[in-house]
Amino acid sequence: MPSSAPASRQNAPDAAATTAGEFALIQRHFSRPCGHTALAGGDDAALLHPRPGMELAVSADMLVAGTHFFPDADPHDLGWKTLAVNVSDLAAMGADPRWALLSLALPAADDAWIAAFADGFYACAERFGVDLAGGDTTRGPLTLSVTILGEVPRGQALTRAGANAGDDIWVSGQPGLAALGLEMLRGTFAPTADGERCLAALHRPQPRVALGQALRGLASAALDISDGLLGDLGHILVQSRCGATLHEDALPLAALYATGASPALARRCLLAGGDDYELLFCAPPAARAAITALGPALALPLTRIGTLSDAPGTVALRSADGTLTALAARGYDHFG
Amino acid sequence: MPSSAPASRQNAPDAAATTAGEFALIQRHFSRPCGHTALAGGDDAALLHPRPGMELAVSADMLVAGTHFFPDADPHDLGWKTLAVNVSDLAAMGADPRWALLSLALPAADDAWIAAFADGFYACAERFGVDLAGGDTTRGPLTLSVTILGEVPRGQALTRAGANAGDDIWVSGQPGLAALGLEMLRGTFAPTADGERCLAALHRPQPRVALGQALRGLASAALDISDGLLGDLGHILVQSRCGATLHEDALPLAALYATGASPALARRCLLAGGDDYELLFCAPPAARAAITALGPALALPLTRIGTLSDAPGTVALRSADGTLTALAARGYDHFG
Repeated sequence: MPSSAPASRQNAPDAAATTAGEFALIQRHFSRPCGHTALAGGDDAALLHPRPGMELAVSADMLVAGTHFFPDADPHDLGWKTLAVNVSDLAAMGADPRWALLSLALPAADDAWIAAFADGFYACAERFGVDLAGGDTTRGPLTLSVTILGEVPRGQALTRAGANAGDDIWVSGQPGLAALGLEMLRGTFAPTADGERCLAALHRPQPRVALGQALRGLASAALDISDGLLGDLGHILVQSRCGATLHEDALPLAALYATGASPALARRCLLAGGDDYELLFCAPPAARAAITALGPALALPLTRIGTLSDAPGTVALRSADGTLTALAARGYDHFG
Repeated sequence: MPSSAPASRQNAPDAAATTAGEFALIQRHFSRPCGHTALAGGDDAALLHPRPGMELAVSADMLVAGTHFFPDADPHDLGWKTLAVNVSDLAAMGADPRWALLSLALPAADDAWIAAFADGFYACAERFGVDLAGGDTTRGPLTLSVTILGEVPRGQALTRAGANAGDDIWVSGQPGLAALGLEMLRGTFAPTADGERCLAALHRPQPRVALGQALRGLASAALDISDGLLGDLGHILVQSRCGATLHEDALPLAALYATGASPALARRCLLAGGDDYELLFCAPPAARAAITALGPALALPLTRIGTLSDAPGTVALRSADGTLTALAARGYDHFG
């Protein structure tokens, strides 16, 4: 660990010792036993033993107070979400999440806050079988940085680059709810029903790990929806060199309407709302029956919302009467 | 990647798109080709193929402006050091550094600053054979978060827990120079010679990767000196349940005196100065000849500075006339 604190450390070793002790105490909230880590914490590095035949999937995300979450966010929810958004990245690869490293910058050593944050983080870790194998704690503006490591059988990872024209476009669960939850927090939307469901989608996203693993060998491309359905679809279109036609009457809007959202708000949240962490994936039509069977097996709605076209980078919306409207793949602001 | 920007994103998609574009541009500075990464960047996760027979060594460090470095630090040096302190953690395990993930929070998209930072980071990555396999870029107070992954033959990692009473205590290179460099920056020390050497030690630490690997099978315990020699020695003493006797006349003080540092300053910087990133290691006396031969082979001074005792947690300084003075293992402030 580096510690060249320029401001005070060398001139005031006693004060530095207090700070170090304070943060060592904090770090004890993150010392729960590991299940499958050869050596965790307390040394220069953790030691991990990947299983034979696996390749490693590794992803990092940094969350900053005021940019990614409200500074007064509930620390338990924030702990869950900090790990969940990383787990979701591995779900989108079809990988099995195994280890995480958490680096925290904290403005002060607030024991109650960190205890609640740790509880939320570990709740997600236990749910998905992730060992917290290492990390760092330091003083600074509230910043949460996670690296997650998982395993996927070699050659079977789901990337964004494998889809082809003619493939179906699918989405899991109910995208748009998290964006409605955010509108509620801002006071710009008051639901007539299902308000708690919207807030839960925002605060405690459920990474689709089982779905991602079940899609290995079925899906041709996949990613998780973090920036909005249309924007994330654009990543697949670029990397798979395809276009897309979305079927308006197939879009899962009913649950959004049921909250009392206007048609315009519901469509905006569905197509451009961030923070859903549902999976968007493509698969050849031959896989339809197998994918349809996954929904009940996983107790998770899977909706076929469109088809990939051979017009790279273009997105069209096909209405019920067959009318095609061009959409920009990136950004809801161009959606009429 | 998560992106639930609470302040503006959902209400102002155009502004958000600009910001995202800005940071996507920034991230292009970190897209140099990888040498040994199956899939790097641009997907939900990177894919890595560890080599058979290896275990993974993984470590994370977070550096915060104002806490770990001066906000006006030279960005090229800062880029080097951000990776180097992580490489040093793997060196201390005897591991071969292979991959890194870099998460950056930046207050603004300053293209020149980030270009220089990236150059420094890649200079270190190329020097030590590290692929930058992934990461994240976001807006926030300047924070640098790295996770490094490396490989070590299974069962051969150097930990802090394997040392025994009777083992020799060794240190590499010249600890104390970096602390003198920091005193120079603060204006509290004006060297009569070797000032550039002190600043180089502070700004461009050289991780001892080749030494760490050569010590596999020789050293009984090892770590890198980041918090100061005495404090870091304390970690080995705790985890190996030993004490230590340091030999005053063996301490490598001559090079510190040569800068014009007073005896008190030189001793303080040697024993408690942070940021050295030299290796402190223990080995049985039977390994002395082999370790001594490593110095010339690696063009790196290796100094035997003491012996582990069977009095757990105690540190004594033995002067030339045989007098023993008790020291606290943790913290120079108790050093007379």
